[in-house]
Amino acid sequence: MKLYGASFSPFVARVRTLLAFKGLDYQQELPPGGLPKSPDYLKINPIGKVPTLVDGDLILPESEVICEYLEDTRPEPALRPADPAARARSRLVNRVADLYVMGAMFPLFPQLNPATRDKAAAEAGVAALRAGLGWLDGFMEGEEFAVGGAMTMADCAVPPILFFVHYVMSHFGDHEPLRDLPKLDAYWVNMSRHPVCGPVLDEMDTTFKAMLASRG
Amino acid sequence: MKLYGASFSPFVARVRTLLAFKGLDYQQELPPGGLPKSPDYLKINPIGKVPTLVDGDLILPESEVICEYLEDTRPEPALRPADPAARARSRLVNRVADLYVMGAMFPLFPQLNPATRDKAAAEAGVAALRAGLGWLDGFMEGEEFAVGGAMTMADCAVPPILFFVHYVMSHFGDHEPLRDLPKLDAYWVNMSRHPVCGPVLDEMDTTFKAMLASRG
Repeated sequence: MKLYGASFSPFVARVRTLLAFKGLDYQQELPPGGLPKSPDYLKINPIGKVPTLVDGDLILPESEVICEYLEDTRPEPALRPADPAARARSRLVNRVADLYVMGAMFPLFPQLNPATRDKAAAEAGVAALRAGLGWLDGFMEGEEFAVGGAMTMADCAVPPILFFVHYVMSHFGDHEPLRDLPKLDAYWVNMSRHPVCGPVLDEMDTTFKAMLASRG
Repeated sequence: MKLYGASFSPFVARVRTLLAFKGLDYQQELPPGGLPKSPDYLKINPIGKVPTLVDGDLILPESEVICEYLEDTRPEPALRPADPAARARSRLVNRVADLYVMGAMFPLFPQLNPATRDKAAAEAGVAALRAGLGWLDGFMEGEEFAVGGAMTMADCAVPPILFFVHYVMSHFGDHEPLRDLPKLDAYWVNMSRHPVCGPVLDEMDTTFKAMLASRG
């Protein structure tokens, strides 16, 4: 299998966590042409986003879809709870993290620089992000794992998104963005020490800093 | 089971299509307090969006999560293809329709009125919506069903979203928004005549017009 995308992408990190947990072999490559919007990569994934998984004839974009596919084709060790209600709660945590936490951060990226910031847009964006974090915290069940007593697909998705919550919020003077959400904050600390999730987060940090440094 | 939400919501319509296809009994109710942001409904779903499914002890928001849960607990007749690659393509179509078609429409709702329209925001929004429709058309396999030769979860999700594509684009003078995408256009016509999907779309139309009329 081949996985396209840089390791600092939270969506690439989600798939890398799942692949590492299952002990699956794969090659990771940057998009041909260097960037997700390069013409050569758009031939692979017309949406121009990472990751894309190539597995034989199948070319599959969208991290959540990739994770469900890998779970369908390489079910052991399982990352979907056996109980349907727990499985639904795991998918719900993923969805809330994607739509209302990560989704709330996209409009904030153009507002990171205080010199060019639209103050009203930044305030609205930060409020939306805080609301999303509150919902995520509410749907999380524990401090060790998102749902139930074991690792699920939710634990592949949430930690890389929380990495970016810290990065984004630090630009707005908040260096402890989870301090009012003790469950989510403890979860973040636990995941950063987890034998599978921790190294993926470390690799995000290293590659993200290198990317920022290369842009000067 | 109880399903909260008005029938014109594309996310409620997705779940209604799945429930109808499976012949499942349920009660449908508007959110208590009348609106998704009412305090009584926020106690059920803090996100304040519809639908929410209540099945025994489980209170489950987010239409995509609800559909996966219903497929896990009421698997027959199946709406997930047996082949994992086809199953992934069905989930991909759903995801693209959610993120890049429906997601592109949200910023357009405040721009529907030409008198108060931000022209640049409207143009950017329409361009994003057209891009999303192009990707959706590219990932769709057929004119009769989204993936393979039978109904899947993608066919629960896409038609209600295409309903709103027609509504939104009509405000920008485009009454045939799928005319450059013949596969998607033929699919829309076929789905509007489908014995399960057609009545759900008709009910969307009736309830949406009634809601608009009630707002005057």
